Amino acid sequence: MPTSDNESPPVYREIAEELRAAIASGRLSDGDRVPGENDLMKRYGVARATARQALSVLINEGILVPIRGSGVYVRAFRPLRRHGPRRLSRELWGSGRAIWQADAADRSFEIDDVRIDEVPAEAHVARALAVAEGTMVLRRRRRYRLDDRPLQLASSYLPLDLVRGTAIARVDTGPGGIYARLAELGRAPAHFTEEIRVRMPTPAEAKALRLTAGTPVLDVLRTALTSEHTAVELNEMTLDGSAYVLQYDFEA
Amino acid sequence: MPTSDNESPPVYREIAEELRAAIASGRLSDGDRVPGENDLMKRYGVARATARQALSVLINEGILVPIRGSGVYVRAFRPLRRHGPRRLSRELWGSGRAIWQADAADRSFEIDDVRIDEVPAEAHVARALAVAEGTMVLRRRRRYRLDDRPLQLASSYLPLDLVRGTAIARVDTGPGGIYARLAELGRAPAHFTEEIRVRMPTPAEAKALRLTAGTPVLDVLRTALTSEHTAVELNEMTLDGSAYVLQYDFEA
Repeated sequence: MPTSDNESPPVYREIAEELRAAIASGRLSDGDRVPGENDLMKRYGVARATARQALSVLINEGILVPIRGSGVYVRAFRPLRRHGPRRLSRELWGSGRAIWQADAADRSFEIDDVRIDEVPAEAHVARALAVAEGTMVLRRRRRYRLDDRPLQLASSYLPLDLVRGTAIARVDTGPGGIYARLAELGRAPAHFTEEIRVRMPTPAEAKALRLTAGTPVLDVLRTALTSEHTAVELNEMTLDGSAYVLQYDFEA
Repeated sequence: MPTSDNESPPVYREIAEELRAAIASGRLSDGDRVPGENDLMKRYGVARATARQALSVLINEGILVPIRGSGVYVRAFRPLRRHGPRRLSRELWGSGRAIWQADAADRSFEIDDVRIDEVPAEAHVARALAVAEGTMVLRRRRRYRLDDRPLQLASSYLPLDLVRGTAIARVDTGPGGIYARLAELGRAPAHFTEEIRVRMPTPAEAKALRLTAGTPVLDVLRTALTSEHTAVELNEMTLDGSAYVLQYDFEA
């Protein structure tokens, strides 16, 4: 296969890498205006097309954001801190708040594209919920957005005999969400296990999460268990890897 | 930029994708022998060079492993389950075992490339250890390997005034490792915080961890705190994202 490893990079790439280094080092930080085409033309003695191409590289990677009639800015996106134990504490959902509100209390978090159906349990779902493979389960799929940016896809699976006809099977599950409703059914979650894997997204995920090239996803697989260690929910989440910091605290 | 998005893929790619699908679906699983060059030539009616190129694609991605004089096999690599709370329990390091032994009790885990030095604390290290930026700290860098495959790079930072001249500043820290030694110094870790981020590797990391294309890394940033909530260690780990499943259990 032909490679171009030994050629020196084109000038627009070198300019892009200098801008990238300035952002990485903090010389240019979130929300800062970066040098425009005219500045770059003067500073590097290059044509407008070259200056434009340099900015395009970082715009396409999602690092820079062009604002019409104003300039090009460093993307101001604070990664979300997702605090495993704290966000799933009973105080939270027990008080009628939604779990994902713990991730971004002061920001505009939204759920869209809620789809609910009944499906036969695939092997890993059956194993997690301790039912026979092919047993019908309720599936709730949805997407989470923050400041209009899609961040997460989630699919919850719950035993159908437990949740059929309850608010859990409706689009709006009511205050405190699924876990508050499970508590009302006498099946309050008491223990959680989260498994984290990382991988590159499928083309469909890249589209749904609007991921730029070179952005991996985090798979978070959560099982919710009652105090008797009966599994009541499996939640398969796919997170935009560039948007999250996951935090877990525990004791020695 | 020229692209070849609209051209149909070459035949060797199509064969590689069929093999990949067979592995993804489980029709071919860990350790199975895959069809060899002769089989592929017959099945697809292609030349030996094409069959060889198809196998090369998956060999280069680390999915297939050629064994001289025997054939080509699906890589049998069980991902490591890294159980956050359990592996850091006091019973483990208190009993003189190494933390990473909890990840793979029955396998051949090794540490290599241990490098110890004293460095001025960068901003994030200073913040974690609650010292002034530029304060000298002990840094322990090392690499973890399993079955001869490099899996993880780690850099621990500890307050120099606490650990200078102790076994923590030596290559072999003795039974139970750093945490057992900290306990002997009256600074046993009692609380841990782990932060997880995901990103693509730098070229140096890809080389050190022998990562194939399209393999992201997991950054795990762990702070160890005493029962008085004094930070005694910051450990910056970079994990081969394809080799690990991280698990955390917690209560509602």
